[in-house]
This record gives sequence, structure tokens and C-alpha cells, in this order.
Amino acid sequence: MELLQKTIEKITGLDQEMMNAARTRVDNLIKPTKSLGRLEDLAVQLVGITRNAIPRVDQKAIILMSADHGVYEEGITIFPQEITLAQTLNFPKGLTGVCVIGRVSGAKIVTVDIGVKADIPEDAGVLIRKIKYGTDNMAKGPAMTREEAIKSLEVGIEVANEQIAKGVQLLGTGEMGICNTTPSTAILSVIGGFHPEEVTGRGAGVGNGGIEHKIAVIKEAIRVNQPNREDAIDVLAKVGGLEIGGMAGVMLAAAANQVPVVVDGFISTAAAVIAVTIEPKVREYLIPSHASAEPGGQKGSELLGIKPMIHMDLCLGEGSGAAMAFSIVDAACSMMQHMPTFAEAGMEI
Amino acid sequence: MELLQKTIEKITGLDQEMMNAARTRVDNLIKPTKSLGRLEDLAVQLVGITRNAIPRVDQKAIILMSADHGVYEEGITIFPQEITLAQTLNFPKGLTGVCVIGRVSGAKIVTVDIGVKADIPEDAGVLIRKIKYGTDNMAKGPAMTREEAIKSLEVGIEVANEQIAKGVQLLGTGEMGICNTTPSTAILSVIGGFHPEEVTGRGAGVGNGGIEHKIAVIKEAIRVNQPNREDAIDVLAKVGGLEIGGMAGVMLAAAANQVPVVVDGFISTAAAVIAVTIEPKVREYLIPSHASAEPGGQKGSELLGIKPMIHMDLCLGEGSGAAMAFSIVDAACSMMQHMPTFAEAGMEI
Repeated sequence: MELLQKTIEKITGLDQEMMNAARTRVDNLIKPTKSLGRLEDLAVQLVGITRNAIPRVDQKAIILMSADHGVYEEGITIFPQEITLAQTLNFPKGLTGVCVIGRVSGAKIVTVDIGVKADIPEDAGVLIRKIKYGTDNMAKGPAMTREEAIKSLEVGIEVANEQIAKGVQLLGTGEMGICNTTPSTAILSVIGGFHPEEVTGRGAGVGNGGIEHKIAVIKEAIRVNQPNREDAIDVLAKVGGLEIGGMAGVMLAAAANQVPVVVDGFISTAAAVIAVTIEPKVREYLIPSHASAEPGGQKGSELLGIKPMIHMDLCLGEGSGAAMAFSIVDAACSMMQHMPTFAEAGMEI
Repeated sequence: MELLQKTIEKITGLDQEMMNAARTRVDNLIKPTKSLGRLEDLAVQLVGITRNAIPRVDQKAIILMSADHGVYEEGITIFPQEITLAQTLNFPKGLTGVCVIGRVSGAKIVTVDIGVKADIPEDAGVLIRKIKYGTDNMAKGPAMTREEAIKSLEVGIEVANEQIAKGVQLLGTGEMGICNTTPSTAILSVIGGFHPEEVTGRGAGVGNGGIEHKIAVIKEAIRVNQPNREDAIDVLAKVGGLEIGGMAGVMLAAAANQVPVVVDGFISTAAAVIAVTIEPKVREYLIPSHASAEPGGQKGSELLGIKPMIHMDLCLGEGSGAAMAFSIVDAACSMMQHMPTFAEAGMEI
């Protein structure tokens, strides 16, 4: 709790003065005003986050949290739970979606076992920060205790702090956890005040009971646990997931360290909803990536007030969309670094 | 005319057999089927275009066509016409929007003077292929002769052929030409059968007469010239532009050489409409980039049947959106190169 509390206390808003100066500069670069649209807004945001007039993001990392879910036993998904373990072992080998996309911008993939339902070999290249062997079944009781939820946030904070200490200037969130659209949808329903019907999608593939069964399980989990929507840690504990807490922790640490953090798809958006409910100023440090194909993705983005940049019907998770957006963040930095103003270019207009 | 004719004759459809094999492979990569959405479609398209099961786009170029427009004298834009020259000289210096974004993916910028209304110094790093000193005023008569329109297409073909001969594996189109949303809108109106009111936007900034004056000029140009919508060269000559013809030529050459070509924003979309009207199979070689903030951009994309991937309210042109999409093309190639199938990864599912 102490680490979480200290981290929250460190978070301040962006540097408005530097952002104003950056906006003036961007408006005077050699292009029609606002013609680079949201790339300009992103550049200004990066200045405000980093307190650097020429922000740099040369060192990038996706922090990828892996965990299992007790609610799996309700038969919501077609995928075997063992996929969580198998993919967690594939990340350090560079084989999965986020890895191949991350290569394009030179992003490091930091894989964290925060709650996989199996032991991960020590030499697998995975950071072992396991809190427990998967959550409990939220359809029958809380997914975890409040202490475990806080611990999941603190694991995320610790891992992000370590990466930032190593020089990482841009973070992205990613996850692996078979069945994790279910707790994500529950979180979004509770905090956003949505009916589960509005925000439940098919995830990677729903089981025999179809989407109706998935909705019923989410409703039951909310009914059984009665999470308090004003208390994000309560929501995370009762209907969340260990990897979701881990990602929320990464976002809190990013904000506390004035480092931008790219939000991946639907699961990451649910984590962002937790982080922003804990400390609203976190929102200013979030950079959107892609529009998730999950119906709840759009609602979640709207709730956060962030607007996805990439529309490609991605729904893999893992941080794959965040990794794709890293190149756009690079472009915003490149603009600030290499583009002159009309005056600097000696052009009168 | 001979080069144009030969180029058109060389264009074939994509390799369907290789695309089917690529689709099967993509469906079996270690991720839920279709979870990488349109990145998967893009990868399959790249295989079909390049006839390479593991497509590569290590060498990339934006071909940037610069030209002026006689219709400028109608007072449609707030920008001085001299900006065309000034920016054309800035491209080889790496200073403009497309340059700073292109750096991210290592794209070369090939600047071509196809019709700037001024002489460009020989040592400016610009390819001089000037057809004339800007088009004539299309509000009073044809923008150029049919021969000049064909020549503009052939300049595009020549420059693209040269780049491909040098090893470029991915092309993008870009342009500079103060006032060129006006001919682009006219082309789209004529070939797409739209009312100019539906597709006219503010461009980089409309002049004192507002958007109404711009619409009136476009209508007048169509009325005076009566372009034949079935004959793209006639449309290009009467209400087009030299840089638009140049970009259409780049697309024709890309298709003829089985090289993918990324379409930038609104002006490039108008060029694509010309190229696809000349030879419909060109469409299969086009890769979309961003959704232009110009209202005609969406109509143009729909007409072409391509769907933008990046939504950031860009409206700079220059190829800036195409350059941004290059990283996504890289990601599609990286997926084919580095991601194994479930069987290859030894995962049973």
C-alpha cells in the first residue's frame, strides 16, 4: 500500500506552460496550421508529459502482464486456459503478435508472470512476480482480496519503475490471460455504469453458451460481489484480474514518472479505467492506440476521453495495437525534432 | 503514349493462388483467427502483389510530385502560390511534414518538379521533369492538353520505374501544389458523379470567397470543359493537374511492376481515381493510409473501395499520411516473417 500511495502522491498534471509554448511552435511549423491534425496534439501532449520541448522516445517497452482467471471455469471461451502459459513462454522468444509488431519500432517486450496458473521456468525470460495462480471465480465470489488487488497494482508500478530507471522513455501496456475480456467488461460495466449487454463482445471467441452466457456470467459476478464503483480497488478486487491491476499500476507509475504510456485495446482500456478512477490525472499521460473490435472498446475510450488513432479491427491484445502506435509517437517526436518554423526556414508568409 | 500503353498492358491481377496460401498461413499463426484484423488482409494483399510468400519492404520511397495550378488566379486559397516552389526546395532538405514522418520508417523522399511555376536550381536535389510552368486556368478552358496529361502520367511511370529499378519495394504517393484540392475535387466530382457541394472542403485554407466560391469555380471548370467521365485522361487534362497525373502514373507503374503503393490523402485519392479508371486492376495494388479530413476523401476512398487505417485528421498532403502508413506495412511484413503457426510453435489447439 505504501508504494501505491507514494506513487499516487507523485502524480501531477501536465506542464501547461510548456504545452502552450509547444502549441505555438507547432502552429508555426512549415505547414498549414493544424494540417497534421492529432499528430500535433500528440506532440504537444508529449511535451507536457515529459517536460521536454523536444521529446524523445528512443527507448520503448511494452510491459506485458500475464495471468489466469478463475471465471474460466464458467465455460465462457472456446480457448483452453493453457494458452495463457504457452503464449507467456512465446513472448520472450519474440514469436507473438506484439513481438513482431514491436520489432518495427524497436520496442522491448517485458513479460511479467503476475498470476499465471502454472509455474514458469526461471530461465524462460519472464519476470516472475506471481501473486497467485490465477484469480478466483468472480461468478462465485471476489476474484481476489483487496490486498491482492493492491499488490497487483504495486507489481505494475515496480516493473514500470524498473524499466524507466533503465532509460525507457515510452511505455505501452499489454496482457495475456485467457478469458480476460470477461473481467474487463465487468469493470467497464460497473465503473462506466453500462449495462453488460451494451459492452460485452465475443472476445477471442465465446464458448458454447454464446455471448448470452458471457453476459449472464458478468451480471452474476456483479450481483454476487456488489463492487463499489467509486472505489476502483474494490472493483478490481471483486470483478477484475491480476494482469489488469498490473497494467493499471504501469499507468500510475508512468504518470508518476512523467513518462507517456500507450494504452492498447479493450483489456488495457479497462485497466486505464481503473487507473484513472484511482487518480484522474493519469488520463493526461495516456496515449491512445487502436480502436478495438470489441464493442466495449469504444465505450471505454469515450469514458476515458481518449480517441484511437488506428482503425484496423485488431482484437488480439498483448499490446499489439500499442506497439503499432509507437511508430506514430515516433513521428510526433520526429516532427518536433526536425521540422523548422516558417521563420527558421526563412519563409515569409 | 507508348510508355503509358506498355505499362497498362503489363498490369495483371494479384496472384490469387499465393493469396489463398497466405490466408491459410495467416489463419494458423499463433493468435485467434482474424484477431490482427486488417493487418492480416494487408499481409495477404502484399503476398498477392509481390508474389513473395514472405514479402519485404525494406526499401521505401515517397514519390513527391510538385506542380502549380492556373486556377490559382481565381483566388480560391489564402496561401501564396510561391509556397509550391518554397516547399519543393524544402523536401530535399528533409524539413517538411512528409520528411519528418518518413524518417521513422526510413523512407526516401524523391521530389519531382513536374510543373512548378518557376525554375528549380539543378543542384536543389529535385528531379526536373517539368512539363510546363503550371497548368492553365481550368475555370476558363482545359488545364492542359491531352498530350500534356499523357506526358504527366508518363513522367510518373518513368520516375517510379527508376526507383523500382534501384530496389525500392514500397512506394507512396505525395504532392505539393498550392490550390490542388480544387482540381482533385473536380476529378472526384466528374468521375464519381458527385455534386461538388458534397465533396468540396476547405483544403489548406479557402480565400475570401469562402467555400462557396471554391464550389462555384469547380462547377464552372466542369461546365466550361465538359470532361468525359468515361475517359480518365480527358478528365485529367481538362480539370486535373500535372502532379495528379504524375501520381496516377506512379500507381500505374507500381501495378505494372508488382510493387505495392500507398495512397496518401485527398489529392492522392483523386490520382488513384484517375489510375483506376484507366486500368481497374490498379486498385488491387493500392494500400490505403489515413482518412483525410477533406470531405471528399471519404467519398474517394469509397469509390476506390479502400479503407483508411489511420484516423488522425491529417490534411497536409505531401505524402505525410502515406509515410505514416509505411510502419503498418512494415508490421504486416514482420508478421509474415517472424510469426510461426501453431504447428510450427508446437502448440496443439
